[in-house]
Amino acid sequence: MATTCRPIRPKFPSYDRAVNFGDAIYEVAGVLDGKLVDFERHMQRYFNSLEKMEIESPLEQRQILETFRRLIDLNRLDEGLVYMQVTRGVAERDFLWPAAIEPTVFMFTQPKASIENQAAETGVTLASGTDIRWARRDIKSVNLLAQVLAKKAAAEAGTYEALMVDADGYVTECGSTSFFMVTDDSILTRPLSNDILPGVTRRAVVALCKEHDLNLREDRFTLQQALDADEAFISGASSYVLPVVKIDQRQIGGGKPGKLTRDLRQIYIDHARASLT
Amino acid sequence: MATTCRPIRPKFPSYDRAVNFGDAIYEVAGVLDGKLVDFERHMQRYFNSLEKMEIESPLEQRQILETFRRLIDLNRLDEGLVYMQVTRGVAERDFLWPAAIEPTVFMFTQPKASIENQAAETGVTLASGTDIRWARRDIKSVNLLAQVLAKKAAAEAGTYEALMVDADGYVTECGSTSFFMVTDDSILTRPLSNDILPGVTRRAVVALCKEHDLNLREDRFTLQQALDADEAFISGASSYVLPVVKIDQRQIGGGKPGKLTRDLRQIYIDHARASLT
Repeated sequence: MATTCRPIRPKFPSYDRAVNFGDAIYEVAGVLDGKLVDFERHMQRYFNSLEKMEIESPLEQRQILETFRRLIDLNRLDEGLVYMQVTRGVAERDFLWPAAIEPTVFMFTQPKASIENQAAETGVTLASGTDIRWARRDIKSVNLLAQVLAKKAAAEAGTYEALMVDADGYVTECGSTSFFMVTDDSILTRPLSNDILPGVTRRAVVALCKEHDLNLREDRFTLQQALDADEAFISGASSYVLPVVKIDQRQIGGGKPGKLTRDLRQIYIDHARASLT
Repeated sequence: MATTCRPIRPKFPSYDRAVNFGDAIYEVAGVLDGKLVDFERHMQRYFNSLEKMEIESPLEQRQILETFRRLIDLNRLDEGLVYMQVTRGVAERDFLWPAAIEPTVFMFTQPKASIENQAAETGVTLASGTDIRWARRDIKSVNLLAQVLAKKAAAEAGTYEALMVDADGYVTECGSTSFFMVTDDSILTRPLSNDILPGVTRRAVVALCKEHDLNLREDRFTLQQALDADEAFISGASSYVLPVVKIDQRQIGGGKPGKLTRDLRQIYIDHARASLT
């Protein structure tokens, strides 16, 4: 994948708490036609993550918007994403952080074809595995080793993404995307809690289903229910909505992207275009 | 605390995977009389952590020893610790890492009075809380947010360290130390598994108990059992063995360091001196 990246702040001291503790949060917003998708919702989650971590935002929303726009311009980014990370800051290594500490911020862009994505036609495949993450998955922190290992295992199984299943056999979500299944024209996704990340695209999809009178329920479901689904899809800031056609070698919906999924992808793309900032 | 620190490699690119994913392991070895405590055991854990993470060590054990010694010299460190971190390396941000990636290494020293530690006389206090870590606690990774938050809560409760308790009510260990309880002259500590970090000092204490005919069992025990203990102590690379005199406001052993704990601290210190490299 060809990329152009110009991090604003390219170097970290080895005492930055992101380096020593993963003590940092991040946000990823989609870029389409050189503009930001669902910027408001990303900012809500951003400020939420910081609040949960007791980090004060070093930037106001207006400054973030300006900086995102400048970065997009500098990189001549048409389609892709903007990544922002905020760490608790630099302090000599100690689990307890000092009162006087200034957050470190950095941002970069990555180009990615979200609209003209071949995976939207062919569908993607998943491999299931145990969700071994910590109990505060609602915080978008960079403590991401569990996801790194899950996605590594999924790739080794020849699949596109990892489907994570909790100790009770219920699906939580995917390695870096949210998961939805469709049964009898009813769309199911795991309810928000500390068990999953509050996906911004997930949130948009839930709202769009309501707007379009699609029957979506937020409820737990098992891996077996997902395997037996009529359709399945994942959502994410740069994936938008992508059909799932296979889980653990088992075809979903006959191995073809489902009708409801295709419709929702289009509905989401229309929403994304309408949301551009 | 006065410190002198000269990181060998003081800056990280923002694309280092330690920064974006916490994709790194670390090791902390005690320094006494300007020499390394239990170096061999630390190296065994170090190579183990890397193997579990599928990272190849960028340094051989001999090189690590030479570098540790040079750092100790440069910093004129008599007593304290050496910290080493190895990250998976630098790559454009993607959960999957590329085949061609070189680990990043950095080290620093911190002075700390481990022998003449007032806490050894007075004992330390703990506050219990739910262990919210991920399921691979056997890997000494820098995904340490759960411990950071646990130790923050313990400090806010006015205590020295966090005592982490699993969902079934069993004690795992402390925020950054291992935990032991004593009942009827029998010492108990949680068995090794993915549920706890394989503490190097813990391992030495277990071996020393056997050598000295002290009755140590590796078995699970509840928070209530710990609260009812005759004695309790924690162990760690720079704590050695420290008596616990209070858990959640409840006095342990009448609020005084126990006899067995004091003996074991001395036994450990003798071992540490004998192990110096």
